[in-house]
Amino acid sequence: VNTEKNIVIIGCGASGGTAAQFARKTDRKTSITIFEKNGYSQYSKCGLPYAISGIIPQLDNLIEFNEEWFKKQNINLLLNTIVEKIDIKNRIVTAKKANTAIEKSYDSIIICTGAKPFIPPVKNINVEGVYVLRSIDDAKKIKSFIKKGKNAVIIGAGLIGLEMADNLYKMGMKITLIEAFPEILPNTIDKDMSEIIYRDITKKITVLTNHLLTNVESINGKISKTIMKNKITGNEEKIPADLMIIAAGTKPEVLLAEEIGCKIGNTGGIIVDEKCQTSIPNVYAVGDCTEYKDFVLGKPMLVGLGSIAVRQGITAGVNAAGGNHKLLKGFLQTSTSEFFDWEIASVGLPSKYLGDKNILSGKFNGSSLPEYFPGGKPITIKLLVDEKDGLILGAQAVGDKAAQRINTFAAAILGGINVETMRKLETAYAPPIAPTLDAVTLVCDIVSMKIERKNR
Amino acid sequence: VNTEKNIVIIGCGASGGTAAQFARKTDRKTSITIFEKNGYSQYSKCGLPYAISGIIPQLDNLIEFNEEWFKKQNINLLLNTIVEKIDIKNRIVTAKKANTAIEKSYDSIIICTGAKPFIPPVKNINVEGVYVLRSIDDAKKIKSFIKKGKNAVIIGAGLIGLEMADNLYKMGMKITLIEAFPEILPNTIDKDMSEIIYRDITKKITVLTNHLLTNVESINGKISKTIMKNKITGNEEKIPADLMIIAAGTKPEVLLAEEIGCKIGNTGGIIVDEKCQTSIPNVYAVGDCTEYKDFVLGKPMLVGLGSIAVRQGITAGVNAAGGNHKLLKGFLQTSTSEFFDWEIASVGLPSKYLGDKNILSGKFNGSSLPEYFPGGKPITIKLLVDEKDGLILGAQAVGDKAAQRINTFAAAILGGINVETMRKLETAYAPPIAPTLDAVTLVCDIVSMKIERKNR
Repeated sequence: VNTEKNIVIIGCGASGGTAAQFARKTDRKTSITIFEKNGYSQYSKCGLPYAISGIIPQLDNLIEFNEEWFKKQNINLLLNTIVEKIDIKNRIVTAKKANTAIEKSYDSIIICTGAKPFIPPVKNINVEGVYVLRSIDDAKKIKSFIKKGKNAVIIGAGLIGLEMADNLYKMGMKITLIEAFPEILPNTIDKDMSEIIYRDITKKITVLTNHLLTNVESINGKISKTIMKNKITGNEEKIPADLMIIAAGTKPEVLLAEEIGCKIGNTGGIIVDEKCQTSIPNVYAVGDCTEYKDFVLGKPMLVGLGSIAVRQGITAGVNAAGGNHKLLKGFLQTSTSEFFDWEIASVGLPSKYLGDKNILSGKFNGSSLPEYFPGGKPITIKLLVDEKDGLILGAQAVGDKAAQRINTFAAAILGGINVETMRKLETAYAPPIAPTLDAVTLVCDIVSMKIERKNR
Repeated sequence: VNTEKNIVIIGCGASGGTAAQFARKTDRKTSITIFEKNGYSQYSKCGLPYAISGIIPQLDNLIEFNEEWFKKQNINLLLNTIVEKIDIKNRIVTAKKANTAIEKSYDSIIICTGAKPFIPPVKNINVEGVYVLRSIDDAKKIKSFIKKGKNAVIIGAGLIGLEMADNLYKMGMKITLIEAFPEILPNTIDKDMSEIIYRDITKKITVLTNHLLTNVESINGKISKTIMKNKITGNEEKIPADLMIIAAGTKPEVLLAEEIGCKIGNTGGIIVDEKCQTSIPNVYAVGDCTEYKDFVLGKPMLVGLGSIAVRQGITAGVNAAGGNHKLLKGFLQTSTSEFFDWEIASVGLPSKYLGDKNILSGKFNGSSLPEYFPGGKPITIKLLVDEKDGLILGAQAVGDKAAQRINTFAAAILGGINVETMRKLETAYAPPIAPTLDAVTLVCDIVSMKIERKNR
C-alpha cells in the first residue's frame, strides 16, 4: 500500500517550479509530478528581453532549473504535456504527452497555469513579424526579426514594453512605442514620475501615448505597417513596421480551474487565500492565474509579478506537502526595472488606482550623495500617504538605487510605520555612499510638513 | 522691550549648524547666535579623508553652509569664539573672541561641543607627523605629509582608520594599520564579516590586529618610527613611520555642561531626553558630546555618528525655538562606509555588545543579481535576531548596495517586524537589478529556519 502523498503541479513556470522545490524541501518522500505544456523547465520570463538583445548571451541561460535538477530532486517533470482534465471526485488528473494519455492520482494539486497575453482585437494581426513575449519560443521568433536600422513597433509602454524598447534600441532598431494611456508606465508609477523618463527617452525613440492599435498591414504575409489611432484627435497614422511586439498586458489562464469549479474573482483570476488554497479542497493555485489582496487596499487584484508568483509558489509548495506557510495578508506590489539607463521602482499602486483614499503626496528630487562629494546621481522619490493616519500607501522612485530605496518603503508599509516616524529613520550615511539625510527620509519630511500644515 | 527669544548654540559642527537651521525654520523671528571656537562654519567632518586624497578637490569644498549662508538666515555666527562660562541663574553666556569679551543672554542654549580624539597614553607622541583627524586644520597638516612611497601608520581600524588607510593608499603611501582588538572594524560589524574585508585588504596594506601603540621615535622632532606591542605574544615591533594618524576613538567634550551641572552618564556623555533636553532647564545638548538610548538595547550609549548628530540637531533646534520634536525612542546606529572598493553597512551593534540577549544569527552570501544575469556583485548579509521573539537586533552587510539594504533592516527594526514576517517582504525584482528573492529576505530565511529547528 502506497501511503505517500501525491502532489501534482500544473505548469513549470516560476511559481510552479518554486512550488515543487519547496514541496520537496518540506517532505523528502512525497511524490511530486509537474505537467508542463511547453518544452522548457523553469526559466526566467523576466530575463527574455535581455536574452533577445544578447546581454544574456543565450536564451538557454535563462533556464534556472533544468530537467536534470528536477530529476535529482526526485521531482517527476513531464514537459510537452497538456493537462486535459481534473477529476476532483476521484482525485485524478488526466494529461496527454504526444499521443499518450497519462493518469495521475493526487492528494494535492497546484494550478500554475499563468497568464496569456492580451491581444488587441484587431484584424490582420496574425501575420509574420507580430509577436508577444511570454516564452522562449516567442523570444526565438523575435530574435530572428532583429535587424539594425529596421523598424520595431511595440504595443504597450509598461515595464515589458519599455524593456523590449531598450533592448531592441541597443540592437540598432528604430523604435516606436505605443501606449493607450496618456502616460508611459501607467500601471507602475504616476505620470509626474514617468515623465522624467519620458522626457529623456523621446530623444532616442518615438513614443506615442493616447494611441490605439487599429490595424496591421502586411506584404506577402509579413507585417509592413502598423496603423494607430490618436485617441484624442481621432487621427489615424501609419507607421512602417518590420517587427511588432505586443506587450499590452495579460489575462489569467483559468480554464482548468474554472472547469473544476474554483471560484474566479471579479478580476478574472482564481481566488486564493493566504495559504494559496482555492475554493476547492486540496486544490491550490499560484502565480499569474490568481488574484490576491493588495496589502494597502485590502481588495483583490491580479498577480502579475514574478516576485509574487515565487512567494506564492513557496507557500503552496510547503502547504501541499503538509507544512504550514502563509502569505502576508496582502501583496505589496514591489517592482523595479531598468531601461535607457533609468532605474525605476515602486511599491504599492499609482495614485489613480488608490480609489477613495485621501492621498497626501510629496516628491523629493535630489542627489544620491552629499553635494560636496563628486559623482552623485539623481534620485527622485514620490511618496503617497493616507491623510487620515499618515500610513504609507505607496512609494515610487526613479534614479540611483531606486529598487533598494523602495524596499525600505516596502518594509515601512509592512511594519505599519507612518510617515511621521519614517521621517526619523536613521539611514546609513557616509560621503561616498549617501547623504546624512537620504532621499528616503527627505521625501517623508516633505509629506509630513504637508500634514502639519493641514492640521494647523 | 525685546520679547523675542534668544537661542545660543555652542559649536557649529553638524549638530550645531543643523540646530540653528531648524530653529530658524521653526521661528523666523527668534534671535539665534552660534559661538564656534574654530575658524570654520559647518562642514563635513566625515568628508575629511576624501579631501585629503583629493577625491574631494579642496578642503573648502567640505563647507556645507558658509558664513554667508548663516548671515542670510539671520543667524549670528561668531567664529574663533570660545565660550568661557554659562550663568544658568541669570541666563547669560560669556564668550571671548580674540581679546573681546562677549555677553549674550539666552532663553535656550544648545550645547554642541562634540568630542575630542582619544590619544593613547604614550610618551613622545607630541611630535611632528603625528596627527588626529577631527578638523580641517588636522587635515591640512596631514595633507602636507603625504608623499608617494613614504610610510603611514594608522592607529585604529575603525571606519575612519580604514577610510584614511584607503585614501592614503590611493596617494601611493605604504600603509600599516594598527588595531588593539583582534579584528578590524570591531565596533561596527562582527569578526566573521570584517574578515571578508581583512582577507582582501591585507594584499594591499599591512594590518596588525591585537597590537597596541607603546612608543614613538623621532628624529629632529619629526616622527621616524612607531613602536607597537603584540598583545598576545608581548613582542615589540618597530615600524618606520613618516606620518602617523591616530583614529582610536573619541571622548565626549562635556566640560561646559559639567560646570553648569548637567548630568553626565556612565558613558561620559551628557544625558539628554527624546527632546534633547539635558537635566538643566532650557539647556539642550546634541551630537558627539551626548549619550542617548540605543533603540534595540534600551540602554544609553555615546552618540558617535554624524547622522545621529544631525537628527538630534533637528530636534533641539525645533524645540528650542518653541516647536515640538522628538527623537525616536532610541538610535538605530545605522552606519556605512566604503574603502578598498568594499561597501559596508550595519544597523545595531555587533554581537559582542548585545549583552545578555540570546542571539540567533545567520549569514547569507550570494550575488546582487540573478545567476543568469551578467555583472552580479557579491553581497553578504549577517542578521542578528532575538531568539525570544524573533525581533531583529541588528544587521551587517558587506558588498553591493550594502547601505541601502541595511536601511531596509533599519526600517524593520523601527517597525518591530520580526524575522518571520521580514522573510516574506516583497522585495523589488528585475533581472538587471535584483533577484526574485533578494539577499535581504534570504538571510531572514536562514535565521527563520534556525528558529524553526529550535522550536521543533
